[in-house]
Amino acid sequence: MHEQLEQALREHIRSGRLMPEARLPSSRALAAQLGISRGVVVEAYAQLTAEGYLVSGQGAPTRVAPAASAERPPVPATSLEPRRPYDFAPELPDLAGFPREQWLRCLRAALRGAPFAALGPGDTRGTSELRNELMAYLGRVRGAAPEPEHTLIGGGFAHGFAALCRVLRQRGLERVAVESPGWHVHRLVAAGAGLEPVPVPVDEQGIQVDGLAASGCEVAVLTPAHQYPTGRVLAPERRAALLEWAEDEDALIVEDDYDSELRYDRMAVGALQGLAPERVCQVGSLSLRLAPALRMGWILSPSWLTGALTYELGLSGGTPAVLDQLALTDFLARGELDRHLRRMRSRYRSRRQALVAALAQCLPEAQVEGIPAGAFAFVSLENRLDPGAIASAAAERGVAVQPAEAGRPALVLGYANLTEPAIERGIACLARAIRA
Amino acid sequence: MHEQLEQALREHIRSGRLMPEARLPSSRALAAQLGISRGVVVEAYAQLTAEGYLVSGQGAPTRVAPAASAERPPVPATSLEPRRPYDFAPELPDLAGFPREQWLRCLRAALRGAPFAALGPGDTRGTSELRNELMAYLGRVRGAAPEPEHTLIGGGFAHGFAALCRVLRQRGLERVAVESPGWHVHRLVAAGAGLEPVPVPVDEQGIQVDGLAASGCEVAVLTPAHQYPTGRVLAPERRAALLEWAEDEDALIVEDDYDSELRYDRMAVGALQGLAPERVCQVGSLSLRLAPALRMGWILSPSWLTGALTYELGLSGGTPAVLDQLALTDFLARGELDRHLRRMRSRYRSRRQALVAALAQCLPEAQVEGIPAGAFAFVSLENRLDPGAIASAAAERGVAVQPAEAGRPALVLGYANLTEPAIERGIACLARAIRA
Repeated sequence: MHEQLEQALREHIRSGRLMPEARLPSSRALAAQLGISRGVVVEAYAQLTAEGYLVSGQGAPTRVAPAASAERPPVPATSLEPRRPYDFAPELPDLAGFPREQWLRCLRAALRGAPFAALGPGDTRGTSELRNELMAYLGRVRGAAPEPEHTLIGGGFAHGFAALCRVLRQRGLERVAVESPGWHVHRLVAAGAGLEPVPVPVDEQGIQVDGLAASGCEVAVLTPAHQYPTGRVLAPERRAALLEWAEDEDALIVEDDYDSELRYDRMAVGALQGLAPERVCQVGSLSLRLAPALRMGWILSPSWLTGALTYELGLSGGTPAVLDQLALTDFLARGELDRHLRRMRSRYRSRRQALVAALAQCLPEAQVEGIPAGAFAFVSLENRLDPGAIASAAAERGVAVQPAEAGRPALVLGYANLTEPAIERGIACLARAIRA
Repeated sequence: MHEQLEQALREHIRSGRLMPEARLPSSRALAAQLGISRGVVVEAYAQLTAEGYLVSGQGAPTRVAPAASAERPPVPATSLEPRRPYDFAPELPDLAGFPREQWLRCLRAALRGAPFAALGPGDTRGTSELRNELMAYLGRVRGAAPEPEHTLIGGGFAHGFAALCRVLRQRGLERVAVESPGWHVHRLVAAGAGLEPVPVPVDEQGIQVDGLAASGCEVAVLTPAHQYPTGRVLAPERRAALLEWAEDEDALIVEDDYDSELRYDRMAVGALQGLAPERVCQVGSLSLRLAPALRMGWILSPSWLTGALTYELGLSGGTPAVLDQLALTDFLARGELDRHLRRMRSRYRSRRQALVAALAQCLPEAQVEGIPAGAFAFVSLENRLDPGAIASAAAERGVAVQPAEAGRPALVLGYANLTEPAIERGIACLARAIRA
């Protein structure tokens, strides 16, 4: 009852119908007027006073607070980012496919079942339940070899990688090898933490380990299961050479394992981390596996980095809400992630096929390269084309595509968040933009 | 073929990569994943079940047998932190008071109502809806003067303050003034970001502005509404002198506004930020207002810092999950935070009174100083006592208390997360520890 009254008064004040300084009837008068008990009015006045909508002094009448004016309407915090109907964003999963009801069920169970202590600050490393459940998942599905004490829960790839870069910088590291072409976020995050990103060439077999050795870097960040943007898998010989390099040079490999469960032809290659847990720090994320909005991920740390990483995560914060961690624990334990990924695999496979077919029809000169996996395709273009100009021309037609920084004309086309008809129409628009 | 698969599965179970109780994919799913016939998988599962590695019931999923002795049993990720029945932790709100059902209602509304795009990475600064709602709240309740474009959503105090310190460090800042006595987290986070914390004395009026000026620092982090740990409010003259200092020296004040709504004698003093939005960066958090587990907070940035802070938050991640932001928006709009804080104010007031009464009875020589506010009391002890030794002796009796780093014997006693009987028993134990 008093909530209804509060709501009504709040709306009147916000909308300006009750002006600042306006005097309210006494609680007795208003109660009589509305035919409700006086206690209800007193309660509503007290709440709105606490909220700052009303002011009342000893014996003085209750008034609308001077500052509670709606004179300054809330300025919308608009985003400059345009919304394009055909957004071939490579980093998005199918947002419509997010299993809302299942996630809600897990959240509800977490919220109802959590002991009081779970509402406290919690363990910086993540709840032990989630670390155990995630460890089992990554062992089972990714062939990783996580240890409970060296599995850390973070806020997604950038969060974990940034913390790692800061720790390495504090230890005197100055440079980090990155793939070229590679994901710009690797370079930006490393540079943000004070490390110089050193590009090492990637060819059809993946990163050139000779080039890596020649770079003199002690740390390299890689996407071995599905190189971004070329879409290739690190070749078995390269994989072996890479681990040998790490062993010989006493180096560290940062494995960005962003989409490995999404492979449409065969099982994904196992995680590098599983082969050399003390040489490989895997940083993973739920962004592409579930939804970027969750902002959750993990770090499988080599034992010698765990302490420093935990300290850095504790100091700099940003680890996920404990309730979300509890929900994820339940989600994993129920097999919901496996179920979701199975559903997405079949959906993305079809979308990829639609993309390949649309390209074959509208842009026969374009070549789709790389393995059928993940949420994007690497599409090489004719030599005379300028991908930057194409991206601009496409944008004017409502199509968002990204030029691939590949040393030759190519685009990265994400398809996971577009339906098949949208892919077809989007590629048709893109083709028109290229011809124009 | 099935022998190969059996072998692989067996190895995974033996090595512990597949943990006891871990759920295996269905034979159909694994067959599809591996591109082999389902019969092969069924055969392999049957063999391993016969061998005792797997268990499966009618219709139930196949799992790794509980007794499938991994050579290396899963190490429980235990915490070394002992649980003490009487934990006078100053940083905890009443965890049992967290409004679970209301929060769940908001989460449900957020999850059901969110557009698809809300499941994407979202705006680094936080959703515009939350920024607007929070801005209205802080203006109304805290007298802050936030602007929508300079209100940023972060992952709690440490997250926001760490990002701010990194930005300042990148701009060449080397030192930051901190209160002495003060909150150790200010010093640790600043040092973690490469800034030298410079202690400036705090007396009964709050920070000594003369000392601050003499320090030569250009940035100071302060708790003006309720100094930690002394429990005092910054005196009006000091407040004026502080803002004058900031103006004269072209300096920045970081306002740690951690508990200002929790005042039990009168309305809290308004936020410093409201007086000088371009000189004060307010970093706030829901930890004490709602629950540390939420890991949510905000930064009211001076306009000249917003761009750099947004970039840093984007690069280093750790901003809260978008769904949690949507839930908080709804929670604020329904007036739930105000309602919760009203309830907590009356509860904490009683608990504080119980603490004061218990101290008067069991430790009459102890003095409670500071204003009746927040979640802790500053308790000064007789000069001959050693607070460190008292804390150790109390810990053995199941009582956790923190020595105050105040230059004289004192304790910081948090009371918000303890019931009144627990407070009485805890203080009785503490008194026995002191006498012993």
